[in-house]
Amino acid sequence: MPGVPPARFAYLGPEGTFTETALRSLPAAARAELVSCNTVSAALDAVRTGEADAAVVPMENSIEGSVTVTLDELASGDPLVITREVTVPVRFVLLGRPATDVRSVRVVVTHPHAAAQCRNWLAAHLPHAQVVHASSTAQAAALVSEPSSSYDAAIAAPIAADRYHLSTFATDIGDNPDAVTRFVLVSRPAPPPAPTGADKTSLVAFIGDDHPGALLEVLEEFSVRGVNLIRIESRPTGAALGRYRFSIDAEGHIADRRVGEALMGLRRVCADVRFLGSYPRSDEVPAKIRPGTADGDFRAAADWLARLRQGG
Amino acid sequence: MPGVPPARFAYLGPEGTFTETALRSLPAAARAELVSCNTVSAALDAVRTGEADAAVVPMENSIEGSVTVTLDELASGDPLVITREVTVPVRFVLLGRPATDVRSVRVVVTHPHAAAQCRNWLAAHLPHAQVVHASSTAQAAALVSEPSSSYDAAIAAPIAADRYHLSTFATDIGDNPDAVTRFVLVSRPAPPPAPTGADKTSLVAFIGDDHPGALLEVLEEFSVRGVNLIRIESRPTGAALGRYRFSIDAEGHIADRRVGEALMGLRRVCADVRFLGSYPRSDEVPAKIRPGTADGDFRAAADWLARLRQGG
Amino acid sequence: MPGVPPARFAYLGPEGTFTETALRSLPAAARAELVSCNTVSAALDAVRTGEADAAVVPMENSIEGSVTVTLDELASGDPLVITREVTVPVRFVLLGRPATDVRSVRVVVTHPHAAAQCRNWLAAHLPHAQVVHASSTAQAAALVSEPSSSYDAAIAAPIAADRYHLSTFATDIGDNPDAVTRFVLVSRPAPPPAPTGADKTSLVAFIGDDHPGALLEVLEEFSVRGVNLIRIESRPTGAALGRYRFSIDAEGHIADRRVGEALMGLRRVCADVRFLGSYPRSDEVPAKIRPGTADGDFRAAADWLARLRQGG
Amino acid sequence: MPGVPPARFAYLGPEGTFTETALRSLPAAARAELVSCNTVSAALDAVRTGEADAAVVPMENSIEGSVTVTLDELASGDPLVITREVTVPVRFVLLGRPATDVRSVRVVVTHPHAAAQCRNWLAAHLPHAQVVHASSTAQAAALVSEPSSSYDAAIAAPIAADRYHLSTFATDIGDNPDAVTRFVLVSRPAPPPAPTGADKTSLVAFIGDDHPGALLEVLEEFSVRGVNLIRIESRPTGAALGRYRFSIDAEGHIADRRVGEALMGLRRVCADVRFLGSYPRSDEVPAKIRPGTADGDFRAAADWLARLRQGG
Repeated sequence: MPGVPPARFAYLGPEGTFTETALRSLPAAARAELVSCNTVSAALDAVRTGEADAAVVPMENSIEGSVTVTLDELASGDPLVITREVTVPVRFVLLGRPATDVRSVRVVVTHPHAAAQCRNWLAAHLPHAQVVHASSTAQAAALVSEPSSSYDAAIAAPIAADRYHLSTFATDIGDNPDAVTRFVLVSRPAPPPAPTGADKTSLVAFIGDDHPGALLEVLEEFSVRGVNLIRIESRPTGAALGRYRFSIDAEGHIADRRVGEALMGLRRVCADVRFLGSYPRSDEVPAKIRPGTADGDFRAAADWLARLRQGG
Repeated sequence: MPGVPPARFAYLGPEGTFTETALRSLPAAARAELVSCNTVSAALDAVRTGEADAAVVPMENSIEGSVTVTLDELASGDPLVITREVTVPVRFVLLGRPATDVRSVRVVVTHPHAAAQCRNWLAAHLPHAQVVHASSTAQAAALVSEPSSSYDAAIAAPIAADRYHLSTFATDIGDNPDAVTRFVLVSRPAPPPAPTGADKTSLVAFIGDDHPGALLEVLEEFSVRGVNLIRIESRPTGAALGRYRFSIDAEGHIADRRVGEALMGLRRVCADVRFLGSYPRSDEVPAKIRPGTADGDFRAAADWLARLRQGG
Repeated sequence: MPGVPPARFAYLGPEGTFTETALRSLPAAARAELVSCNTVSAALDAVRTGEADAAVVPMENSIEGSVTVTLDELASGDPLVITREVTVPVRFVLLGRPATDVRSVRVVVTHPHAAAQCRNWLAAHLPHAQVVHASSTAQAAALVSEPSSSYDAAIAAPIAADRYHLSTFATDIGDNPDAVTRFVLVSRPAPPPAPTGADKTSLVAFIGDDHPGALLEVLEEFSVRGVNLIRIESRPTGAALGRYRFSIDAEGHIADRRVGEALMGLRRVCADVRFLGSYPRSDEVPAKIRPGTADGDFRAAADWLARLRQGG
Repeated sequence: MPGVPPARFAYLGPEGTFTETALRSLPAAARAELVSCNTVSAALDAVRTGEADAAVVPMENSIEGSVTVTLDELASGDPLVITREVTVPVRFVLLGRPATDVRSVRVVVTHPHAAAQCRNWLAAHLPHAQVVHASSTAQAAALVSEPSSSYDAAIAAPIAADRYHLSTFATDIGDNPDAVTRFVLVSRPAPPPAPTGADKTSLVAFIGDDHPGALLEVLEEFSVRGVNLIRIESRPTGAALGRYRFSIDAEGHIADRRVGEALMGLRRVCADVRFLGSYPRSDEVPAKIRPGTADGDFRAAADWLARLRQGG
């Protein structure tokens, strides 16, 4: 995202969710117009059509796993690339109308994932409350904020309190205090941000011939060049049961020689490879470079080969 | 499932969904009591507590991918094993009250996955209809069946027509005519059904030390014994981003020597392995046995080793 | 060997052995001066010093295995490259002075390898003859050719009959009718001969860190690029028991992209790699090219990577 | 070698070589009859026929590499097993008749390997001496010991001085002070000596189908069970150029579970496997046991598998 910041950022709405929190953590967002979209598809399509310059969508939650709609939308349609990732701690709060006494809470509304992740807290503190599902934690907060609401409290992101003028009855009510969600900033194809030494490369590998050992071959293209994998996930291609494509995050940047050679190897053994971007890791963990796989090693080997080919 | 058939089968309800269709395709179900449960967890827990003898739950859809709640529930809690799989074609129908004229349909209700999978048909035949979401295709049918319903039609499984006394306005309206869902029959741990030559073994591998190459090691335990993988999927362990367990379906039966040795190898390199059963493949594809990996080859090699150890 | 043919060819002497047969099978030898050398080292050093333009030395026999002195001499000292290989059938003959009656043969002289390879014939036809060793089959023939020789017959190469004015008592007396010896033509470093589609690349890989799995890594550098190995042989480095270098012949030509990338990979994981030449295979077996590893596949992948790096 | 020691040990003669030194280093040799044989084949055949109880033959030299005749003889014919290895430092001495003045040495006789390994010392100390070859270092000493010998000095093993009543003119004249030769004690098939924790297992693997990747498969059978290789060497099968068998020394004992499973794996993927014995390493380096590959790990995995197969 060099130069002038994008004027319009789409994101998975509604307002007041963890996605908005992720988006607002980006410096460029302070000067941008933020556009809430109903679905991941809509947010990504806004970028594809040029309606937005970039989009923030959720990618993976440490408890629930990947957001498969994001994986699938990035794997098909017009190409998009990830230019940045943001990891947001998932800290749930219990919100209610200011006048409410927390002891009188009988009906709690929230998104099903949030309900699942606060199960222990609810059992301990509101054992008799009924839990009702909404389509997002922000919608839950909105429902509670209506004066005549039949819901007494919402489990939501902290950002929703201000947005919907609600009181915070309890904080950090999630059962897993280390839960996080990873979001990605997506744009139309463009040169990737410069390598930082702590980068990640995302891609989708489509196995053409589904022979036994095809996945092993894919992994060996990485391992033989010393490229470590951070995440690998199978997704159905939709063609039939048992046909998969693989969503992969690898250590390193496409500008790194070892990563470039591994990508070319993949491209040669796979039916197709979709590059989804090289970008700084949010955890800033530097790539572990196995001896013999640094850029200098690749350059030295290329020079040596060139000399040999010329008889030297 | 040898001997007397189970008296009680739990299943993911409500009545009238593809899960019930899968359950009713089992001969044993004809003589059994069928218990509808609200969630996959509830259906599996009914088996764990002994309230039910077995449960049918969805595992994987050729379009949407795995049912992660089923994967995750089987990977934790008291052990359960799969004893059978059933694959059901996903054939959506459009249902309405008998008196309704299909041309007057303005509001269609269904489960979000069904809506997604009938998008093209809806665009072509009911371009102006509004699509509203229900929690299941059966609930959608139930909502339409109420005389004063505000919904005109439901997209549901064929089984729902009879159940809810609805007329079938259109059949096979799914965009992908080959879409199927795979269901599994789950029971408390018991000796697996006898090998048929076309079997599948399911398990979960927990990678202990998350070093680069750990997944490659797991795959090699299979490949070196000639055991082909049918499905491999990463799921978060919940401990942190980047920590995964692998849900695996392999060709062959735990009684096969090559599968047994591969499982023991996995057990030695992994932090933990949970066996989820060996059972006949619903597609009846016989296992491809690489030369040198049949049971006779393993026995001959074991006899040879025993002789050598004794100086023979 | 383009252009003007070398004026001087060194070869492992003496005259009248299979090495001379190999050398004379080369068209260029017809116009060249042939220089017999006492040892493989002397023949190779003649090339290194410029005294000869090329040398022919034995590399491998299908019965006895590699000629280790040739392997070791090529692996150390000033670099040399192989530009051609010649395979010569090993057809032994029994030679004697013209006046001799074969039934009176009491003492047979030959090189120990030749004696070993004619053991069955000798047992069947000359069961009572004593076998005495000479330093080469040609020396054996020379000894027999002396009028007052105490040896009655020599086992030698057919070429020795003319050279030493001996009669051929029996032909094809080797126990293994398919035995062959492979010779190589060696020159100072120069651009390799053009690829023919049926080429071989020879090299020596020096394993630096002798960790378990080092050889596996070396093999994977080839296999991942689809380069098949024809021959691999360990030789001691001389530093200590258990320290080896590997002499390797691989399918393909250094000008092939898959071979070039494999060589660069080797160079990066090994302490050292010595290239020993790319040259036409004497058996003219074309390289088997695995899908995805032809030059066009490598070029397409490189173009694709270049586009991605530029944001395309 | 438990119980009563063998009465007769064959060895590669003549007397006074490093092989006799190796043999005499065995405690059991003190009470045994020692039988010198002319060739490695003769020494091994003496064991096969029962004429001897065991034989000592050279296997490998740190400078010259394997003794291929020993490799080949053990790989064919009636099976034999190695029960012990002995490593002997190769310390060459210069021997002459007592009355000789070392400054007058004009002709030195020795085995060609010894001459090669003392080249630097000869160049420095006897630059004008002629070097003549004998069939063994002991024969060289014997030749010098004759009063009317035309040879002035012999390069031989220290043991030859006493044997042939010669004076030692110089010691440690080898160019490589760390040179060693490894000898093996061979007997008819018998239960191997008990594991010591620092053992070695020797075998020959015959690749049946010579497809690309066959050697990689062989190596993977070891690596997947955590068995490290100490030595691997290709030898021609004699059938044709390019057909090899592999002579392998692996860490560990056939009684170790990981070694046993690797051997069975080899047996299944190879055309044939010849076991050549498990025996203590002469360097007493204990086996490195990768986590998950100790006997206890194999037993625990086997117990786990047995329980699963029974439904447990």
